Amino acid sequence: MNKDAVLHIPMSQYAYALDGERMVFRLRAGRGDLDACYLHYGDRACRQTPVVFHSLSMRVAAQDERFDYYEVAFSSPYRRLCYYFELRCGEERLLYYGDFFSEACVDDRSEYYQYPYMHRADLVCPPSWAADAVVYQIFPDSFATGKRWISGRESCFYYQGKTVRGKRGGTLLGIAENADYLEEMGFNAVYINPIFAAGEYHKYDIIDYYHVDPCFGTDEDFRELVKTLHNHGIRVIIDGVFNHCGWHFDAFEEVVQKGREASFCDWFYRLAFPVIRQEDPEAVPDYECFGYERMMPKLATDQEAAAEYFCNVGAYWLREFAIDGWRLDVASEVNDGFWRRFFKTVREVNPQAILIGEVWESAGHWLDGTMFDSTMNYDFRKHCRRFFAEKTIDAAAFDGRVTHMRMRYREQSVFAQMNLLDSHDVSRFSSLCGGDEEAYELAVLFLMTFPGMPSVFYGDELGVTGLCEDDYRQAMPWERAAVSKAADTGYSRQQLFYKKAIRLRRQEEALRRGGYGAVSAASGSRLYVYRRFLEAEEILIALNMEDSTMTLNQEWLEGKLLWQRRLEGYKLESRGFVIVKSGKTGEKICR
Amino acid sequence: MNKDAVLHIPMSQYAYALDGERMVFRLRAGRGDLDACYLHYGDRACRQTPVVFHSLSMRVAAQDERFDYYEVAFSSPYRRLCYYFELRCGEERLLYYGDFFSEACVDDRSEYYQYPYMHRADLVCPPSWAADAVVYQIFPDSFATGKRWISGRESCFYYQGKTVRGKRGGTLLGIAENADYLEEMGFNAVYINPIFAAGEYHKYDIIDYYHVDPCFGTDEDFRELVKTLHNHGIRVIIDGVFNHCGWHFDAFEEVVQKGREASFCDWFYRLAFPVIRQEDPEAVPDYECFGYERMMPKLATDQEAAAEYFCNVGAYWLREFAIDGWRLDVASEVNDGFWRRFFKTVREVNPQAILIGEVWESAGHWLDGTMFDSTMNYDFRKHCRRFFAEKTIDAAAFDGRVTHMRMRYREQSVFAQMNLLDSHDVSRFSSLCGGDEEAYELAVLFLMTFPGMPSVFYGDELGVTGLCEDDYRQAMPWERAAVSKAADTGYSRQQLFYKKAIRLRRQEEALRRGGYGAVSAASGSRLYVYRRFLEAEEILIALNMEDSTMTLNQEWLEGKLLWQRRLEGYKLESRGFVIVKSGKTGEKICR
Repeated sequence: MNKDAVLHIPMSQYAYALDGERMVFRLRAGRGDLDACYLHYGDRACRQTPVVFHSLSMRVAAQDERFDYYEVAFSSPYRRLCYYFELRCGEERLLYYGDFFSEACVDDRSEYYQYPYMHRADLVCPPSWAADAVVYQIFPDSFATGKRWISGRESCFYYQGKTVRGKRGGTLLGIAENADYLEEMGFNAVYINPIFAAGEYHKYDIIDYYHVDPCFGTDEDFRELVKTLHNHGIRVIIDGVFNHCGWHFDAFEEVVQKGREASFCDWFYRLAFPVIRQEDPEAVPDYECFGYERMMPKLATDQEAAAEYFCNVGAYWLREFAIDGWRLDVASEVNDGFWRRFFKTVREVNPQAILIGEVWESAGHWLDGTMFDSTMNYDFRKHCRRFFAEKTIDAAAFDGRVTHMRMRYREQSVFAQMNLLDSHDVSRFSSLCGGDEEAYELAVLFLMTFPGMPSVFYGDELGVTGLCEDDYRQAMPWERAAVSKAADTGYSRQQLFYKKAIRLRRQEEALRRGGYGAVSAASGSRLYVYRRFLEAEEILIALNMEDSTMTLNQEWLEGKLLWQRRLEGYKLESRGFVIVKSGKTGEKICR
Repeated sequence: MNKDAVLHIPMSQYAYALDGERMVFRLRAGRGDLDACYLHYGDRACRQTPVVFHSLSMRVAAQDERFDYYEVAFSSPYRRLCYYFELRCGEERLLYYGDFFSEACVDDRSEYYQYPYMHRADLVCPPSWAADAVVYQIFPDSFATGKRWISGRESCFYYQGKTVRGKRGGTLLGIAENADYLEEMGFNAVYINPIFAAGEYHKYDIIDYYHVDPCFGTDEDFRELVKTLHNHGIRVIIDGVFNHCGWHFDAFEEVVQKGREASFCDWFYRLAFPVIRQEDPEAVPDYECFGYERMMPKLATDQEAAAEYFCNVGAYWLREFAIDGWRLDVASEVNDGFWRRFFKTVREVNPQAILIGEVWESAGHWLDGTMFDSTMNYDFRKHCRRFFAEKTIDAAAFDGRVTHMRMRYREQSVFAQMNLLDSHDVSRFSSLCGGDEEAYELAVLFLMTFPGMPSVFYGDELGVTGLCEDDYRQAMPWERAAVSKAADTGYSRQQLFYKKAIRLRRQEEALRRGGYGAVSAASGSRLYVYRRFLEAEEILIALNMEDSTMTLNQEWLEGKLLWQRRLEGYKLESRGFVIVKSGKTGEKICR
C-alpha cells in the first residue's frame, strides 16, 4: 500500500456537512493503489464501549494524476461522529485514524477521527442561487452609454473639488438600457466593476464609498439599474474595494492635511509624517499601499473605526439599493478578522447575498464559511489556458488539474466558484488562443459545463480580443451585437455560440448541480470526455482538442444529442464536440 | 522522487508568521527522499516581472516514520510573499508551486504559492507566559479543606432552593492554604476544575455561572484564592462549561416550568414540549444534551441571547476576579462562531489571558488564532502510554508520533499546548504503568522536557493511582506530602522526582522555548535520546526504556551533567536517564 499518498484532514473539505443532514467524507490515496476503501462511523457519544460502528463503502469520486479521491456522502443519523477508514490493497488491510495506520480498533473512542458536532451555524452555505447563476462581468466605463451604443468619449467631472475621469463613456443607465440584451443572451447575474466616485476610469481608487461616480451617473441611476436588472431576472453583484482607497478619499485627505493631528491616522498603515502625495509615479510611498501604487493607500481594516465604516458601506448598498452581493477586491491581502465581520454584517442584512473574494490562489482558507461564499477562480483560467490555448498539457493532465480544483474545496463551495476565462485584470482568452477560434469555443463550452458559476467578461461573446489592458478593456463593440427573440438569426458566430452554450447550461440542471467525472482523459491524448450526472440524468460531453479525428465509444453516445460540431457517426473531427443526454446514470466511474 | 509524499498547505502550519516579522515555511517530503530542498520567495507586489526571488536552504527540522519535514524560518523583508519550493533528488530537480510539480518558473506570479499579507491582527499569538508555565490541575472537591488536610466528608447545601453536593470536602480556601506547597513544588499556574454552583460534586452541571458553589466557599473566598495564588507567582485558570448547563440552571428551569412560553426556549436545541426532567437515568431525553446526560442540556450558543450571556460570564470572572484564563469544556462540540466571539471578548478584557480548549483530537481547526490559544493535549498522553506504560511501540515509532504532534500546529501553538499524562477524565498514568514506577518517572521527565505546558493532575506527585473515576479523583493524600524550603529532605520518592523535574524545566529556558530534535530513536530500540536547543545552549536527554543497559555515544555526553539515574560511565542501565547540558548547539540534526 502506498501509505505516503494517504491523506485525510478532519474539519476540512475531507470531512464536512453539506447541509443540516448530509455529510461527505473523503480520503485521498495513491492512484489505483487501493482495491477498496470503507468509512466506519459511529456515535461519538455512543453509550456502549467499544463504539458501535456502521460501515459504508467509499467510491473513487475523482482521480487526478497521482491520487484517487475516495468519497462517500450520506445522511448521518448522528450529529456527533467518530470515524475511521479501512483501506484494502491485495491481502493488506489497514485501518487509518488519528493520522496513523493501525491494524485494529481501540476501545478509547477519542483515538478515532472526530466530527464533534454538526452545527448549522458553522455550515459552509453559499446562497443556493449561485449554482444556477451565469454571470456577465461588466467594466462600466467600457460597456454602454445607451441602447447598443457606447460613446467612446472621455469624461471629466469635479466631485467634491476633486477630478474624476472616465475614458470610454460607459454609464449605469447604459447598462440598464441593455438589460434585454443580457437577458436574451441568458445571463441571470452581473458583476459590475467599481461604480463609486473615484479618480481614474477603472474606479479602484475610491474617494466616496457612498456615492456613484458622476462619470457613470447618479445614485438614482444605480437604483434604476438594479430595478431594471431585477425585472429581467438578473442579480447584481458590485465591486467592493476595501483593501485600499484612493488618495483623495477624505480619511487620507485629512491625514495629508493635518498630519499627526488627523483623526484618521489609524485608518492607514505605517504613515510617516508629514504624509506627502508624491508626483513621481516611481516613488516608493511612505505609507503602505496596494502594491506600490502610491495613489492607493492601504486601509487598516484591522482597526475598529475603519472596520466599522466599511462594514457599514457593505450593509448600506445591500439595504438601500437591494444589490445581491459583493465581489471583494484584493481580498486575500485584507485581514481575516475584517472579512468575518463583513460577512456577518452582510448576512444579517440579506442571508441570500453572495460574497466573492478576489483570491487568485487556492482559497480554502477563505472558504471556511466565515468569510466568502466564493472566489474568482483564476485557476480555472490557468488550466484551460494550458489545455485549450497553449495546448501544452494532455487530457490526462488537464483532467488531473480540474479534479484537483474540484477536490480542494467542499462541494457547495465548488458549485459557487466564479469560474472565468478572463476578466478586467487579464488578457482576453480568445487572444491567448492565437486565432484558434474553435479551441476558444471548446473552452467556452467547458466553462458552461463545469461545476461553478461561469463568468463571461463583457464582449467575449462578441469576439473582443486584447492582450494588454487598453485592449482587453476596449469599448463594447455593439455594432457586432444582435438581439432576436424569434429565431437565432443575425448573430455573429461567437455570440450565437455563447447564447447556445448558456441556454444549454440553464436548461440542464445536471450541468449546474450535477456530479462530475472524467470518462476519457488518456495520457498523450487531447480528447477529453466527461460527464455530469444528477439523479436519473447523465450528460456526456466530448471535446476533441486533437488535431485529428477521434473515434468515440458507441456506448457513450447513446441518448439524446443536445449539440454537436463535426461529429460523423462516432467520429469526432479535430475541434469538434458532442453533448449527449442519456436517461441512465449511476456509478459509471472512469476506472 | 517520491512525489506522493510531498505536501504543502498554504495559510496553515506549513506557512505562517511567528510574530510581526519572522516567518516559517515547511514542506513535507518522503523520509530520506530528497537530497536538498530550497524555499524561493519574492515580493508578491514586486515591480519587476518575473518576480525577483531569494532562496533559502531548508533543513529537515523533524522526521516521523514516513516523512521529512523541511523547514526554514527567517525575517521576511516583505509583508506580501509569493514563493515556491525547489526539490532535489539525485539528478532530478523539480519546482513545486500551486500544488503541482514543474520544471520551470513562470512569469505569472499568481501561479506561485502566496502568503498574501502578514497581518498582526491575524497572527496566532498565545500569551507568551504559556511557554513558561508548569500547570497543576486541581479537582477542587478532592484537593484540600485546610493546610495539608482534606476532611473527606460529604457536604450538601441548598442553593436557590436546589440541592448542591460535595463529596470529599475540598474548598477554595483549602487551595489557598496550600499555595506555599504549590510554589515550593515549582508550579506557576493552576487549572481548577469547575467552581460554580452546580448539583453534583464534579460541578459540570452548573446552575449559576455567576457564583461559587457553597460546597467550595464563597465568591469572596475565590477572590482571596486568586490573590493568594498570584502572590505566590501562580496564575489561575478556571473551567468554563458553556457546552451545556445543569438541568436546574434558571434558563432550563423556566423551559420546564413555562414550556413554549418560556423566554429561554432558544437557549436549547430540539426541545419537545412539555420539557420533562426524567427520573430514569437510562431514559433518552427529549432535548439535546452533553452526550445523553439528561441532567446536562446542551446550550444553543449559536443563538444571540445565549452567546451574549456566556461571553459576559467569560468577561466577568476575568475582570472582577482577575483570573488568567479559561479552560473550556467539551470545546469541540460548541459552535465555532461562539468561540470566536468568546475569544474576542476575553482578549479585550485581558490580552494576556489564555484560552485552552478541551479538544482531544488533532485541534488545528481550533488553533487558527481565532478560538483557542491551546488545547488539552491528550495525544501526548496517548503516545506516552504506548511507549512508557504499555511498551507497545519502539523509540522510532514514539519519536514519529511526537514529531507528528509537533508538526501539526504552528510552533507558537505547540509551545502553548497543555501536555498531560492524566486528568480528571482518565486513569492515572501511574496506574497504566502497572507498578513500573521508574517507567512512570521517565514519562514525567519526558513531560517536563517536551515543548508545551506540562500539566500535573493533583496528587500525581504523591503517587496517587486509580483506573476508575472514584479512584483517580480520590482525596489528596496530604499525609504523604512534605514541604521543606531548606534541603530536599522528607520527601517521598515521587514528590522529590516531580520537584526536581519541574525545577529543571523552570531553570532551563531551552526546555521551555528551545527547538526539539531526536538524536537516537532507532527502530527496534527503546532507548530514546533527544535534544532541546536554544541559541548557544543544548540539552541532551536520554531515556532508557530498554530492559537492558545501553551504551551511550561518548560525544553526546560531553558537557555539564544536570541529572542522571543509573548512569555508569557511558552505560545507561534499564530505566535510567541522563540529562546533559552542553555549550555547543547548532544544526546537529538527527540524520
